[in-house]
Amino acid sequence: MAPWGKRLAGVRGVLLDISGVLYDSGAGGGTAIAGSVEAVARLKRSRLKVRFCTNESQKSRAELVGQLRRLGFDISEGEVTAPAPAACQILKERGLRPYLLIHDGVRSEFDQIDTSNPNCVVIADAGESFSYQNMNNAFQVLMELENPVLISLGKGRYYKETSGLMLDVGPYMKALEYACGIKAEVVGKPSPEFFKSALQAIGVEAHQLLSV
Amino acid sequence: MAPWGKRLAGVRGVLLDISGVLYDSGAGGGTAIAGSVEAVARLKRSRLKVRFCTNESQKSRAELVGQLRRLGFDISEGEVTAPAPAACQILKERGLRPYLLIHDGVRSEFDQIDTSNPNCVVIADAGESFSYQNMNNAFQVLMELENPVLISLGKGRYYKETSGLMLDVGPYMKALEYACGIKAEVVGKPSPEFFKSALQAIGVEAHQLLSV
Repeated sequence: MAPWGKRLAGVRGVLLDISGVLYDSGAGGGTAIAGSVEAVARLKRSRLKVRFCTNESQKSRAELVGQLRRLGFDISEGEVTAPAPAACQILKERGLRPYLLIHDGVRSEFDQIDTSNPNCVVIADAGESFSYQNMNNAFQVLMELENPVLISLGKGRYYKETSGLMLDVGPYMKALEYACGIKAEVVGKPSPEFFKSALQAIGVEAHQLLSV
Repeated sequence: MAPWGKRLAGVRGVLLDISGVLYDSGAGGGTAIAGSVEAVARLKRSRLKVRFCTNESQKSRAELVGQLRRLGFDISEGEVTAPAPAACQILKERGLRPYLLIHDGVRSEFDQIDTSNPNCVVIADAGESFSYQNMNNAFQVLMELENPVLISLGKGRYYKETSGLMLDVGPYMKALEYACGIKAEVVGKPSPEFFKSALQAIGVEAHQLLSV
């Protein structure tokens, strides 16, 4: 058996990234990457467990899945591991009420979260919402806390759009870390907890996994 | 002689900070700190050399000095060491053409600087001008350079205004450092070169200096 075949022999589950693997985002909902619609369909017909794992934090899962379905993908919200719902679980478990420095497109994911009298900050790829005013609001919330908690949905440096390179959440996370003298908790890749939650959702162990 | 007297015996020059030492900034031009107008006047009548050394980078020296003169201080532009003119000297010496991520109040300091086809970024306390768009412009300029040069006027974390704590330039400098994987050159306190240029202006050695 070829080395590849050997490695694949023990595989029971597949973790698929979305942006750059299934589709390229862009104007009008983006475009499916050649062969990916059929590849997902074949994986789902196979004996393998499939989970979609993304750091997308400008869109809700509902919007993201809607977009992918329109491109022809067989995918549902329940099959997607994304930072916003993972953060919501942490907020609930720890009784945290966030000031949300996020993109409006992902705000609906936090509908069930109490945001009154904030005792932490959640920062995500907010795009144009990274105004000085919003950054300063987040900063002031953190500085008034005895134990400042900053949760960052990913820590990417930048990403590519058709219009050029765009600053991601990471630089803004670093800005608040430096301003407050604290360290953020990262929810999303490459956090091991995030991968673990995706694996748990399909009942697969790390050594049985293929990640694309 | 008392220890204080001993220390003062060798003093030939005095470096005075401006904000928080001479005056508190705020609405309507700020207010002089009690006794500071007379203290400056007495220093100037003494045998001591006096130099004003500030990290102010939201205002030009002209504006700053005008404000201080209205409060009663005997001070002129030529007596002030500030980051913007120090940066201009560096830009000229090294043939650098900056993309300016700065406050409009300090833009006049860069009137003589060529900003076409930028080959570096100068970042200062830009306040509301720290928009996502402007940060992304600066980021894109840096990413297109073979040897990205980022010059930061100070690296303060935050400062206090009557309305509360405000993010300073430091956090935004850190954001661009992380995004581009580079290290900024800091012009202003606490950079040793900056202090040295203030000392040279009054012909005083570091060991002959009293700094307030």
